[in-house]
Amino acid sequence: MKTTFLSNLSLYPCPVVLVTSKHKQKENVLTVSWAGIASSNPEYITIAINPKRFSYLMILESEEFGINIPVAGNVEAIDFCGSHSGKNVDKFEICGFSKFYGHYIQAPLIEECPVNFECKVYNHIDLGSHVLFVARIVNKYIDDEIKMEDIHEKLNPLIYFRPNYYSLKTEKLGYYGFTKNILPDDKLFLK
Amino acid sequence: MKTTFLSNLSLYPCPVVLVTSKHKQKENVLTVSWAGIASSNPEYITIAINPKRFSYLMILESEEFGINIPVAGNVEAIDFCGSHSGKNVDKFEICGFSKFYGHYIQAPLIEECPVNFECKVYNHIDLGSHVLFVARIVNKYIDDEIKMEDIHEKLNPLIYFRPNYYSLKTEKLGYYGFTKNILPDDKLFLK
Repeated sequence: MKTTFLSNLSLYPCPVVLVTSKHKQKENVLTVSWAGIASSNPEYITIAINPKRFSYLMILESEEFGINIPVAGNVEAIDFCGSHSGKNVDKFEICGFSKFYGHYIQAPLIEECPVNFECKVYNHIDLGSHVLFVARIVNKYIDDEIKMEDIHEKLNPLIYFRPNYYSLKTEKLGYYGFTKNILPDDKLFLK
Repeated sequence: MKTTFLSNLSLYPCPVVLVTSKHKQKENVLTVSWAGIASSNPEYITIAINPKRFSYLMILESEEFGINIPVAGNVEAIDFCGSHSGKNVDKFEICGFSKFYGHYIQAPLIEECPVNFECKVYNHIDLGSHVLFVARIVNKYIDDEIKMEDIHEKLNPLIYFRPNYYSLKTEKLGYYGFTKNILPDDKLFLK
């Protein structure tokens, strides 16, 4: 049986990214978990930002941002960058993040995140409490030492399942298409 | 050191939802991992769908869909609904999913998924390989027996980190705001 509910439980679990931005010499980093893939060719992603966040106007005005995908081990820095405002503190400095710069955007990218994207805003939609930015990924970086064959272990991402952060079990449950050979008159058994 | 790369690695890891739709008496269910939260008040989410998928026109024409968040134990049905087309098979039947109906949309919802949303399409953006649907969540359901205090364990969601499905470690790494008391002149240590 089901009941309707009104709590803030929404889509779960969510990825966690560090969004970097630059505007008028000010650089900032904000943890965002409300992000999704929007298209694969060309590549687009979405991020939802509360307009009260210091990064909001920086992204709106510069029309670009960096996406930096952190490792689970740095959960303290990740939480810090989501629960403090860049208006008052230099989050790069406190967290010890090293910056590097890409080819297409002015905003810095974060060396300690193994994967980084340079993004150009394509569209933004004001939805109420949050503004949805739809952005094109124009360039992607990965740590040199990460080989595509052991990428899942090495990237070691974390997940946000409000209000908690989790890592992934290394034991996988399956892979895309592992049920390709199930026939139309087969039956699956639900748990 | 970083290198630019061109592989299909995009944002990771991603949530996994079963998107239900109805159009002209035909009902379908499609596994979608390219989804994100777009706003919290009112609540909006995004899903990206390849226009070649059978569900695409159904959602475009009906302007509504259901979001059903599955449990990790049903990974076989989840993969099946993403790697087979509803054009040729009745995926509800093969997977053994029980349907129920909400108040605001015609599309069915899935009983075996502990959380379900009724969604109305607000906007769609053609981005190339995928069309991004931005939709308002107009109603939410949860299994009666799930209490908000043990929600994380009971919901037991899965994650897609292309091409693999993973469950979440039950040991959490932290919770939102656990670094609230770090002072501006403190330093964090990165791993």
